Amino acid sequence: MSAIEPAFNRPALEQLLGKRFFYAPAFSLYGGVAGLYDYGPPGCALQANVLDIWRKHFVLEEDMLEVDCSIMTPSEVLKTSGHVDRFSDWMCKDLKTGEIFRADHLVENVLEARLDGDKLARNAPVDVKADKDEKKKKKAAKVTAVRLEDSVVQTYKEILAQIDNYSGPELGELMRTHQIKSPETGNDISEPVVFNLMFASSIGPTGHLPGFLRPETAQGQFLNFKRLLEFNNDRMPFASAQIGRSFRNEISPREGLLRVREFTMAEIEHYVDPAKKDHPRFSEVANYKLNILPASVQLSGKTDLLNITVGEAVEKKIIDNQTLGYFLVRIHMFLTKIGINPDRVRFRQHMANEMAHYACDCWDAEIHTSYGWKECVGCADRSAYDLTVHSNKTGEKLVVRERLPEPLVEEKLQLEINKKVFGPRFKKDAKAVEEHLAALDETTLEGLKKSHDEAGTFAINVNGSSFDITKDLITSFEKVSITTHIREYTPNVIEPSFGIGRILYCLMEHVYWTRPEGEARGVLSFPPVVAPIKCLLVPLSTNEVFVPILNKVSAQLRRSGVSSKVDDSGASIGRRYARNDELGTPFGITVDFQSAQDDTITLRERDSTKQIREKIEVVVELVKEMCEGKTTWEQVSAKYPAFVSQEVAE
Amino acid sequence: MSAIEPAFNRPALEQLLGKRFFYAPAFSLYGGVAGLYDYGPPGCALQANVLDIWRKHFVLEEDMLEVDCSIMTPSEVLKTSGHVDRFSDWMCKDLKTGEIFRADHLVENVLEARLDGDKLARNAPVDVKADKDEKKKKKAAKVTAVRLEDSVVQTYKEILAQIDNYSGPELGELMRTHQIKSPETGNDISEPVVFNLMFASSIGPTGHLPGFLRPETAQGQFLNFKRLLEFNNDRMPFASAQIGRSFRNEISPREGLLRVREFTMAEIEHYVDPAKKDHPRFSEVANYKLNILPASVQLSGKTDLLNITVGEAVEKKIIDNQTLGYFLVRIHMFLTKIGINPDRVRFRQHMANEMAHYACDCWDAEIHTSYGWKECVGCADRSAYDLTVHSNKTGEKLVVRERLPEPLVEEKLQLEINKKVFGPRFKKDAKAVEEHLAALDETTLEGLKKSHDEAGTFAINVNGSSFDITKDLITSFEKVSITTHIREYTPNVIEPSFGIGRILYCLMEHVYWTRPEGEARGVLSFPPVVAPIKCLLVPLSTNEVFVPILNKVSAQLRRSGVSSKVDDSGASIGRRYARNDELGTPFGITVDFQSAQDDTITLRERDSTKQIREKIEVVVELVKEMCEGKTTWEQVSAKYPAFVSQEVAE
Repeated sequence: MSAIEPAFNRPALEQLLGKRFFYAPAFSLYGGVAGLYDYGPPGCALQANVLDIWRKHFVLEEDMLEVDCSIMTPSEVLKTSGHVDRFSDWMCKDLKTGEIFRADHLVENVLEARLDGDKLARNAPVDVKADKDEKKKKKAAKVTAVRLEDSVVQTYKEILAQIDNYSGPELGELMRTHQIKSPETGNDISEPVVFNLMFASSIGPTGHLPGFLRPETAQGQFLNFKRLLEFNNDRMPFASAQIGRSFRNEISPREGLLRVREFTMAEIEHYVDPAKKDHPRFSEVANYKLNILPASVQLSGKTDLLNITVGEAVEKKIIDNQTLGYFLVRIHMFLTKIGINPDRVRFRQHMANEMAHYACDCWDAEIHTSYGWKECVGCADRSAYDLTVHSNKTGEKLVVRERLPEPLVEEKLQLEINKKVFGPRFKKDAKAVEEHLAALDETTLEGLKKSHDEAGTFAINVNGSSFDITKDLITSFEKVSITTHIREYTPNVIEPSFGIGRILYCLMEHVYWTRPEGEARGVLSFPPVVAPIKCLLVPLSTNEVFVPILNKVSAQLRRSGVSSKVDDSGASIGRRYARNDELGTPFGITVDFQSAQDDTITLRERDSTKQIREKIEVVVELVKEMCEGKTTWEQVSAKYPAFVSQEVAE
Repeated sequence: MSAIEPAFNRPALEQLLGKRFFYAPAFSLYGGVAGLYDYGPPGCALQANVLDIWRKHFVLEEDMLEVDCSIMTPSEVLKTSGHVDRFSDWMCKDLKTGEIFRADHLVENVLEARLDGDKLARNAPVDVKADKDEKKKKKAAKVTAVRLEDSVVQTYKEILAQIDNYSGPELGELMRTHQIKSPETGNDISEPVVFNLMFASSIGPTGHLPGFLRPETAQGQFLNFKRLLEFNNDRMPFASAQIGRSFRNEISPREGLLRVREFTMAEIEHYVDPAKKDHPRFSEVANYKLNILPASVQLSGKTDLLNITVGEAVEKKIIDNQTLGYFLVRIHMFLTKIGINPDRVRFRQHMANEMAHYACDCWDAEIHTSYGWKECVGCADRSAYDLTVHSNKTGEKLVVRERLPEPLVEEKLQLEINKKVFGPRFKKDAKAVEEHLAALDETTLEGLKKSHDEAGTFAINVNGSSFDITKDLITSFEKVSITTHIREYTPNVIEPSFGIGRILYCLMEHVYWTRPEGEARGVLSFPPVVAPIKCLLVPLSTNEVFVPILNKVSAQLRRSGVSSKVDDSGASIGRRYARNDELGTPFGITVDFQSAQDDTITLRERDSTKQIREKIEVVVELVKEMCEGKTTWEQVSAKYPAFVSQEVAE
């Protein structure tokens, strides 16, 4: 039922989600603000359930260290991390109206419209989604039937395949070459300029301490690295994790929950020894197959997927290392567990130019929706980038110190100077010359030693001046055996980073369908484990006789940890079930006059609408087991006889 | 054990909390930012457990509608709510150094120091806490032994008792009268000026949409009132709830987690009919006794507590209504459940001047700490303030429409005009005159009708001009019977609002104690239900033979939903238990050589350090039941024989 619907009706889904208050535009009383949303009771419960599974799947299963850090961040931290200078998009303006566009979105919009126009001119079918989405239509460039040269069509397709890979100046160049204008006015467009995506503020009453809202939860984790390593008894590898709000001041928020300005993230920072990026549990996942789209394929202008085991992908170095591969599988398992259709997930590797400034490799889990493939989880190898920059800036060592299994003995050239002669000879330059000598590497030292041994002197250049180092300045210049007991290294970081709102939206698309009986009968087939409410309780009517039975069932469900909701409104049972189909409630219990006599109740399953009738205790236990994933409706309905009710006309 | 410790040692507790990374100053690598903190793994787990209990105690138990709203808020919303103009504190500056003070804190600081100086001069004991708290000492005004007149001492005490009740100009007046200077420099201080406590930012790329980080989670709930009422099938009363981050740009953050700039709140907005503020479940709590401190007592300069049942307090109108009283009890029950010492909780009513601009009555649950009594939960009656201002501003009705049990029939004077004559007679003024007539109230109409009946005309004044309304302008002016089926009203809001960080800090103070064996043996006696980790697993040594047993116990605990942690470090068992006393882990399981033979393990309880020895299955079940609150250690240790181990030297 959660397979790709042949004619997916997004406006109908959006209407349902609004009507049942899964989410709604924030501040709509005040006209709303693009990119800000509020979650109502079912959306909030769905999110809580998904986060609960996330915590069990990642944090508990792998003993991660969960933290909860500050959102408000002083500017200096984000300057060091590179976000002040580089966490930005390119924007451009309609030169007459001042309307602002995100440069890559503008190019994409206009070229897609031209390709659609070409299809119209050739009488080829145009992508259906553009017609159905009224809101997007307004924003999208107008489609007019103009036939393009075949070579132009090819060029446009190649540009679109790597639209994420262009720099600002390149986008400007594309706009000139392909004469891209402001879609609605036809006016000229400015050159793309950089726009930083962080929300700025000021901390404290002085006005002298600038701050930003964090654009990711990662920095708080990196800044606590030392404390976390200590908490973990100095053992490696380990991971920290954080669930929390982050903020990005998007230029043009769009596509509902998919591109917003404030969102809940769940991020893991897994610290590994850069020399050992293999993973102890990799063998458990090596045969797991994934659909992947490597950077090389995209750069050739294609989007063909490769279905491959993670083991093979790592072996062939398509995926760089075992830890990265292990997490890609764990991400895929998580998405499947919460109800995402596994056939609609792919892992796309970033191309060089689209990579975040801190990453050296990145794979996005993209989920297919009516808007196309959407990045929902990033899995980046941040190498030692963040720990290194923070350490350099603050002078605090952010390293792992590891006792070597065997001491390391190395022969190294060591140069010792005669301080007594050194000072008087070089005077104010003495310190600089000494430091220069101390910092020389082995190869350079070997060259100098040759000159020292042969000519009795060598020359070095310090701050633009040449200094002769004669034999009398040196007390010894020999190979010495040096024993090291400790290895010190900056760990690398593998970072799986989840956009929770995006995942929730994709999930709602994947589980949405309509009963054949009619367009109005929308159903959200959430797996029981994530469903906002697990069980609906409906009395046959508002008759008082049902109240004690409802209370009894309700209390038993609560004791079993199953969330339930009584609907004792006057609406017909069929209408009450329809309402709960829309809320995605998997189970429904009806209390009728027979219940009052023999303590039995009927249990209805949402997707099949089939029912069974058993004693209260039996039904409560079955619902509990199905909600915990210990049994399924298929098994239950095979074991218990179907019940056909006269009263429940659906 | 959680009673008030005679000599509470705050620096020792703070050191423990830092060492075990319950929380730490955020950005400390960069020198830190006052009022921003990060929670490490135990703090984060403690917070999650407390929030979980909160959700069960309030949201689930009372079927509240939980939402998750936007933090970033457009300025217009907070302008309407009154926060842009009135959510502020008074600050003043050292006129020479520019150092900034919160005006009320400055007065408090200086007067307290003078009172301490007076005690010194009289050889009376000075409050111990000032000596122990090194950090506070630096910030506090210097104490010098100067004897004060008895009348001055009395005046200072009266000022301090109502320090929260002064306006900015009044604080300025106090500073002049009592010659308050900058504590460290002795320089003059500026007049207090208003400082808005919200963090400002700008939304979107244009720079024309100012925004603030929300200072409370309430506004998002009010703005969704219509959707929530509809979701609740239009039934009243009901409550919404939200857990989330809020931000206040405090002038001088201090006292650790007690006054911070970013914090997690949990807020309930309970909507009631203003004509029926009683509560259906009030009888369940009417005999519950609370310690309360009404406003009238404080205004008389006293702080004596009144121990009274909620029933009596409501009856005597000390607490305004049943709903407010009901929530005060529920708050007290919640605090007790998570481990706050109930003897150290009081409810203090706000005085008129300290009340937030939106509140008409407010009771704070204050918890006693080494810093004194601290507000941790506010319970405000916001009346219809917020819904009214948002409705007036946006033109959207935020009301409840209720079918009256019996239609309301009223006799009302109704004036109908003759439009044909009206227009030509009054021309451009016709509309204004007509609207004026339509808006007249019953009493005015009665007066006019008299003139109409007697003189055949009456005069009205519209926009400064007088208009004669003659008989020919009127078609009818008679009493008419009007039937109303619907009553429309703006609900009032009772708002219990929880500062989670403050509650966590108070909890950590209340459960902290040290074993008599020595200062270094700190223990956090969290109740099992909130403890970050429930159970520690320790093998006797690193011997391989223990691994399969540990895995078995660990898996069984996980299946029972009990979080556990293995400590297989080389440290002695005693040291490992000491570490976990500091983490507040209530149970410890030891696996030894005997376990390998007979499948038994020892179970140690943290507070008593007593042990029992039973089969694995029995121990796991006992731990589970104690964590769920179904049984207690007292009951367990009474039933099973004590086990005395030779190996575990504590």
